[in-house]
Amino acid sequence: MEIQKEVVVPFNEVKSFIVRCMQAVGTRREHAETFADLLATADYRGHQSHGLNRIDIYMRDIQSGTTVSGDLEPTVVKETAATALVDGNSLLGPVVGKFCVDLALEKARESGIGWVSVRGSNHFGIAGWYSMRAAQQGMVGLAFTNTSPYMVPTRAKQAALGTSAISCAAPAKDGDSFVLDMASTAVAMGKIELRDRKGLDIPKGWAVDREGKETTNPKNVEWLMPLGGSEETGGYKGYGIGIMVEIFCGILSGASYGPHIRKWKTVDTLANLVTDAISCAPEERGHCFVAIDPGAFADGFSDRLSDLMNHCRGLEPADGESEVLVAGDPEKRHMEKCDKLGGIPYHSSQIQFVNTVAAKHNVEPIKCRE
Amino acid sequence: MEIQKEVVVPFNEVKSFIVRCMQAVGTRREHAETFADLLATADYRGHQSHGLNRIDIYMRDIQSGTTVSGDLEPTVVKETAATALVDGNSLLGPVVGKFCVDLALEKARESGIGWVSVRGSNHFGIAGWYSMRAAQQGMVGLAFTNTSPYMVPTRAKQAALGTSAISCAAPAKDGDSFVLDMASTAVAMGKIELRDRKGLDIPKGWAVDREGKETTNPKNVEWLMPLGGSEETGGYKGYGIGIMVEIFCGILSGASYGPHIRKWKTVDTLANLVTDAISCAPEERGHCFVAIDPGAFADGFSDRLSDLMNHCRGLEPADGESEVLVAGDPEKRHMEKCDKLGGIPYHSSQIQFVNTVAAKHNVEPIKCRE
Repeated sequence: MEIQKEVVVPFNEVKSFIVRCMQAVGTRREHAETFADLLATADYRGHQSHGLNRIDIYMRDIQSGTTVSGDLEPTVVKETAATALVDGNSLLGPVVGKFCVDLALEKARESGIGWVSVRGSNHFGIAGWYSMRAAQQGMVGLAFTNTSPYMVPTRAKQAALGTSAISCAAPAKDGDSFVLDMASTAVAMGKIELRDRKGLDIPKGWAVDREGKETTNPKNVEWLMPLGGSEETGGYKGYGIGIMVEIFCGILSGASYGPHIRKWKTVDTLANLVTDAISCAPEERGHCFVAIDPGAFADGFSDRLSDLMNHCRGLEPADGESEVLVAGDPEKRHMEKCDKLGGIPYHSSQIQFVNTVAAKHNVEPIKCRE
Repeated sequence: MEIQKEVVVPFNEVKSFIVRCMQAVGTRREHAETFADLLATADYRGHQSHGLNRIDIYMRDIQSGTTVSGDLEPTVVKETAATALVDGNSLLGPVVGKFCVDLALEKARESGIGWVSVRGSNHFGIAGWYSMRAAQQGMVGLAFTNTSPYMVPTRAKQAALGTSAISCAAPAKDGDSFVLDMASTAVAMGKIELRDRKGLDIPKGWAVDREGKETTNPKNVEWLMPLGGSEETGGYKGYGIGIMVEIFCGILSGASYGPHIRKWKTVDTLANLVTDAISCAPEERGHCFVAIDPGAFADGFSDRLSDLMNHCRGLEPADGESEVLVAGDPEKRHMEKCDKLGGIPYHSSQIQFVNTVAAKHNVEPIKCRE
């Protein structure tokens, strides 16, 4: 077991460091800022697999030209008052996504709903960043993305679909909100790596080995199972959801889809924090963004949502002591923890790693709190 | 074990019998026909828990006035070119649902998308009937409904959400289609009853007992677990999906939602085929229907969908012998079986049961094939 010290970095310094790094490889400042806000938000919410620790992969993608930046912006290919097909022009995923969610919001303000599907994009980070952007403006927000194949369809031996993220955010009363942000697989690969490092088995229903057989040994994991696990426990539903997400993303937009998406490989073995990134040809990822104006439906939306969420939170726990949560609550707790600490906690080795990356590009290192 | 003979009833006779029964209790002919088409389709597709075997409950709901029929139609309360809020006026769920999906389709033809949320409805049967109606017209169709509480939120002791159905149908090439039609719980109650009758345990991840503890004894089942099962295997995702469905249905429309929906109790112990239905005050169920025109997005939608579906179907099975399916394939096989038989197969005791119900209302019995 390695000993890892925790260090704290203020949110704005995380953002500023990411901007410095991305600008160093040629990213336009405005794009770098959008991108940095998403990555820092992921860390602030506790989804550190989607934050700062991926910075070097994004930098390499810009350097290799897989992801582009500069004067380009995403392009609207086709639109109605309520829908749009967008081409991301291979820009950074968060730049493309922000453009699309803002377009969906504009359409929703006019038409009650905006539905935007996009192709020609790249890895877009946490899906919740986009749906929350809608919820912050009083709308129900949905965000979906396809990803390279990791999910093994029920009964199959190998993967054909991505982890297929779904996010839904909606505004409740007094600043409260519902924020679902999930992969359509049972778990993310990161959770399996964590078990492996701790020398623990994984539960049934998480993953299969190279023969497509359910495995409890993290070392034998080849692919992830869909939400629901095996066929007996409803895994075919998670697999169905995976195809639905692909319909919204790749199939509607004409992006790559399912088995055709190349791997954006990041083996972040946190133990030694080596990120083995294999950049590849443009991925043509597809996403989908939806904004729905509750004002186009029945009055009292937020009151009802708060009532339902608070009812769930107030339920008696089965174990007599834990708390019943609602999607988004674990992240709220992580943010409260950060606020108390005065920044985001990272393992010191992770900070060392990103500073090594920064040094290669003559970027000023990230500043931790004393 | 009782011995059950299988009998076969032609699809049109199933429909016609349902129309006779519903008219006998005062349902308007046009409403009865829509309703009968949905129930017969459920049986034809192999979802017999949502078909003929529920006829007596629907009849009682009409008799008690919980569900109304007559000159009323659903009412559009509020609309934009792409959205509508509808009041179902307590009509039969399938009558309300057909009205709404047709409205969504009309809006999608004009605006690229139609999103309709509805309140004041009743149990609407299989969600797939509505999404398939959209797919048959070349659109992507989505249908959602809330239901009375059966799903226990992660960590909680008792249910607060329904089985929260999601359906997505989309047109592929040459008449092929993707048809996802699922509850957001791991399984339906019917599967647990089936295990119980066979004297079998149930797998972990399906259900909890009255203390909220996971149980493998079907006799101890009180509530259903969300898709994903326990917290460790991702059950909080199914629970999150359940709230998302409730946002689309009850929260947007102002229908009853979550714990406020009264129970539409049907204990159909197939063993003796007694249906113990407790009708109650109007349920004010909410649904949501979406139609998306692929024509508003990238050309070649059906080609890409067929390619993805056929890729999945062509994957090597992990057990070397079973077939990898896509959502909707098991139903296609059931329909092929029915076509060969010349009708829908039922247990003779089920037919006896519905004929007993019919006799009470002086309705001509259902005619089976010789």
